[in-house]
Amino acid sequence: MPTADTSTVLLTCGDPAGIGPEVVVKAWSTTLVHARAKLRIVAEVGMLSEVLAARQGLPRPAIVRVEPDDARCSTADTLLVIEPHTAALGQAVAADTTRPTGRVEPGVASAAGGRSAAAAVMAACGLVRAGRAQAIVTGPLHKAALHAAGFDVPGHTEMLARLCGLADAHVSMMLWLPAAGSLGQSAGLGVVHVTLHESLSHSLARLSTLGIVQAGQRLAGLLEPLLGRRPRIAVAALNPHAGESGLFGDEETRLILPAVRQLVEAGIDASGPLPADTLFLQASQGTFDGVVAQYHDQGHIPIKLLGMHRAVNITLGLPLVRTSVAHGTAFDIVGTGMADPASMLAAIDAAVRLVEAGWPLG
Amino acid sequence: MPTADTSTVLLTCGDPAGIGPEVVVKAWSTTLVHARAKLRIVAEVGMLSEVLAARQGLPRPAIVRVEPDDARCSTADTLLVIEPHTAALGQAVAADTTRPTGRVEPGVASAAGGRSAAAAVMAACGLVRAGRAQAIVTGPLHKAALHAAGFDVPGHTEMLARLCGLADAHVSMMLWLPAAGSLGQSAGLGVVHVTLHESLSHSLARLSTLGIVQAGQRLAGLLEPLLGRRPRIAVAALNPHAGESGLFGDEETRLILPAVRQLVEAGIDASGPLPADTLFLQASQGTFDGVVAQYHDQGHIPIKLLGMHRAVNITLGLPLVRTSVAHGTAFDIVGTGMADPASMLAAIDAAVRLVEAGWPLG
Repeated sequence: MPTADTSTVLLTCGDPAGIGPEVVVKAWSTTLVHARAKLRIVAEVGMLSEVLAARQGLPRPAIVRVEPDDARCSTADTLLVIEPHTAALGQAVAADTTRPTGRVEPGVASAAGGRSAAAAVMAACGLVRAGRAQAIVTGPLHKAALHAAGFDVPGHTEMLARLCGLADAHVSMMLWLPAAGSLGQSAGLGVVHVTLHESLSHSLARLSTLGIVQAGQRLAGLLEPLLGRRPRIAVAALNPHAGESGLFGDEETRLILPAVRQLVEAGIDASGPLPADTLFLQASQGTFDGVVAQYHDQGHIPIKLLGMHRAVNITLGLPLVRTSVAHGTAFDIVGTGMADPASMLAAIDAAVRLVEAGWPLG
Repeated sequence: MPTADTSTVLLTCGDPAGIGPEVVVKAWSTTLVHARAKLRIVAEVGMLSEVLAARQGLPRPAIVRVEPDDARCSTADTLLVIEPHTAALGQAVAADTTRPTGRVEPGVASAAGGRSAAAAVMAACGLVRAGRAQAIVTGPLHKAALHAAGFDVPGHTEMLARLCGLADAHVSMMLWLPAAGSLGQSAGLGVVHVTLHESLSHSLARLSTLGIVQAGQRLAGLLEPLLGRRPRIAVAALNPHAGESGLFGDEETRLILPAVRQLVEAGIDASGPLPADTLFLQASQGTFDGVVAQYHDQGHIPIKLLGMHRAVNITLGLPLVRTSVAHGTAFDIVGTGMADPASMLAAIDAAVRLVEAGWPLG
């Protein structure tokens, strides 16, 4: 059972028009972490009641509204909900997030849905920043709805960065794919990208030994608390066959190999550069715990094939623990009962592990 | 039962030091195509006898040496073997391939192994070119052994191109992954690359609308006889999120979209550009029959994760049908019984389908 000292983990539903509330409710009812952490949903009780009443295939837990500092433990059969507009935030928030958002049409992007998602994550961030909770796990939001609500940010991550007074460039993410059926165990595959949301030619021009070293350090620094042991890191090559001894490009010897050497000198169990096509196959079979990917698709193609439905985003660079589902709002299956809570379950599990390990350090 | 008109399909073992002879013998014993084609192995009887005697986990079929024009049908219980040095080739071959190569040490690269692989494929090519057989299915060879034997070519494909009087650049390949458990059915995923064995920065510089159109035409032109219906082709984007409306690069609108339009105008069922990370997931679920990949790893990362052990290379641009296993010699498991014949079985199946469809046309 959790004790009075047990950490509090805040779940947000993302855009209520999407599958976010569904995966939160499903995950709440099945996660084993109630024994290790106090879970809270940051959401409007009215929205959750409506979701439970109207959508197929959900468990029917009771809903209890609680204050942010309520000390009770969470259990699978009762949702404990902190309403965002009642949370004393200790920081300025936009005026239109301090009142209920009203009804949101399932499966449709709207300003109200975007406002609801923003209000929840802002309240959750305020609670964690004030030391009244220890981690945030976010559901999927809808970019257009967020924009319609007047929030000029690409997503949760940048919103959290700004709430913490950080530039967008200061934060990054690790994609984390727990090994199939391994929740509660220490196995999986983490991917940090050296370059991400930019053209492939920009990625190539921006690749640097420093960038690769920093990605490797972020990856190792996050996998260690997540796995509870020293992780085995592989650094992907950029070119086919890892450059085929220089026939297919020189970035391997010029940029990547020096980065791997620096990582090893810094005490990290790093290998590479390794041909990307065989590397992800090896990593998926357990040879490595994490991969430094040089560009977006190099990391995303394998993770999506290996099981994106259970993948997790973990934010790096924030002064708090924040994990997220890696899937979107999936408007096309809202209310059908098909929403899979695997990613939300894995995101909750990862958040609790990181809090227990005292991450982020310092 | 095959008739007198049934086509003859020649199997070669690649380097006898590798798993090639093992997968050929295993595939011979289990393939269902004996009912549709006359199979022959082009190899030295002595080498095959030694493999059957010395290596674990193999069936023990009889071995019968036959002349190239022997009309008998093949059956699972008897290997029908054409010896390369006895095949009347009707063309000049290197002198040192016209006599038996002598004993080859399993699991070790040697000039003798390279010579054996080369002799078999040269003899097979001569027989097909002379109209005495209709297709070649090759086992894996070892590049260094081939070089040690004095053949200055990267592999089978270029050797066949030169034997047919073609420049290396004239030939290319399609990676073909039959749907799991689908041998004998018309499902799978074909990948043709626009750029392949070169640095990623060269690939980016070389991408052109013409190159993409040609790759799409090759892909559709090969999938149609293989599947027996009009294939659904997808063209992968180059940049993350297919360029995110121009934020992440302009190759999608500048090069790829015009190519897709030209393919559609030419009567090909082509879609794209589609984000590569979700595209391969969709394709693997059956939404598409083939993908045009812009660069090596974009096609190879997903194919290796989806099941490289059963993937096939099909050569495009030769005036004959040639398929190949997509795996290597696997020296580390030679003789252990672990060699998986899935790729050889799929390569034989694909060769027979293509011969039956009259490919390559013209």
